Amino acid sequence: MKITILTLFPEFFDSFQTTSIIKRALEQELVEIECVNFRDYTLDKHRKVDDTPCGGGQGMVLSPQPIVDALRAIKGDHSHVVLLSPQGQTFQQPIAHRFASLEHLVLICGHYEGFDERIRDYVDEEISLGDFVLTGGEGAALVIADAVIRLLDDVIRQDSHEDDSFENGLLEYPQYTRPIEFDGKRVPEVLLSGHHENIRKWRLYQSLKRTYLKRPDLLEGRVCSDEEETFLRKIKTDEIDE
Amino acid sequence: MKITILTLFPEFFDSFQTTSIIKRALEQELVEIECVNFRDYTLDKHRKVDDTPCGGGQGMVLSPQPIVDALRAIKGDHSHVVLLSPQGQTFQQPIAHRFASLEHLVLICGHYEGFDERIRDYVDEEISLGDFVLTGGEGAALVIADAVIRLLDDVIRQDSHEDDSFENGLLEYPQYTRPIEFDGKRVPEVLLSGHHENIRKWRLYQSLKRTYLKRPDLLEGRVCSDEEETFLRKIKTDEIDE
Repeated sequence: MKITILTLFPEFFDSFQTTSIIKRALEQELVEIECVNFRDYTLDKHRKVDDTPCGGGQGMVLSPQPIVDALRAIKGDHSHVVLLSPQGQTFQQPIAHRFASLEHLVLICGHYEGFDERIRDYVDEEISLGDFVLTGGEGAALVIADAVIRLLDDVIRQDSHEDDSFENGLLEYPQYTRPIEFDGKRVPEVLLSGHHENIRKWRLYQSLKRTYLKRPDLLEGRVCSDEEETFLRKIKTDEIDE
Repeated sequence: MKITILTLFPEFFDSFQTTSIIKRALEQELVEIECVNFRDYTLDKHRKVDDTPCGGGQGMVLSPQPIVDALRAIKGDHSHVVLLSPQGQTFQQPIAHRFASLEHLVLICGHYEGFDERIRDYVDEEISLGDFVLTGGEGAALVIADAVIRLLDDVIRQDSHEDDSFENGLLEYPQYTRPIEFDGKRVPEVLLSGHHENIRKWRLYQSLKRTYLKRPDLLEGRVCSDEEETFLRKIKTDEIDE
């Protein structure tokens, strides 16, 4: 897979590419990352990429020409072009999986106050990282690239994914490691029992309980097993008793 | 304001601190960023910071000791400690404003499969960037720091904030800049008219229309002006006619 990032700040992504899991994935050629400065495509003699907004207002607006010409230069037959913008669909794990199956993902980072509306005609979709405002799309592109790359084959152990929050539709159960006692707080006895079936049940129960208390929206429309139904009834009853 | 990031990969944040707006804010001493490697606080003779999960399972779990000791070392009287985790409250613009008013924000980045549950006892709150899984909390910390720093006084022009998506509860209206015609597509005539009141109305109408079509949830519970009510009625009627 190849990820191309169109940005005015390609150097923003230097550290990302030389740290930990992403560094290893690049070294093993499991993914290719290309950072393209669309300022290199401007036809303006002063290398400008933005201008004042038509109709007045604060700030500067990215012009269509540099971004559209950069896109034309880097696009192949199987490129999927994503504009990062607060107005797009909110990024979630199913979108990460969809992007991870692409041959070529192109992420466009806006900056300054906004971009010329006509740029929207040249993209396949618009994605937002969430309901907050960033200095530019660079942080969003970095996070999306990270979420996508870790799903690629052989980047991390495949069985590590299965227990991730959101992957099975539930929040993860509480994890513990040594020491058995830390600062007066002990690991729950069941986890030290060696009784695999009890441990499995405890973890499922805790996962369901956390999801019910912190993120009940994740349970809406969930097709529960009989065991999950039983646990959920108990969780709801216990809550009323407390 | 000071932001301390507890991480196993302090070098991940190098490029972030030397790019664009954040670089300038650091140079002008509007914010201080401190990246602390909690591996430096481990008491393990092999410098380990993680161990296998109690009760079995894949992957490694971050031990409580290095993180808790690092926290004790860096915390001051007015520190607010945030654990980045998919189980936290979802980060949104009001949280960015709240963080921007703090004296000392501490962001803890997890990594590997998870962290020992007992670490939760030492933090003030838990924040998630969204419903997706990252290789670690570093990307989330970077994005949150970016969203917070741009809200600090003098980092960017104050009047630039007012039209941001989410700041006034609506998505931003379409922006245009020169050229008037690009690739056969023209800037809307109203924006070239010089008629300020018509431009203001067009922009408010477009903002409301986009929000209604793309993010109707943002309009729930909104206290609308009479003008906004009139526009929304027209938007809904037009949609039925189409």
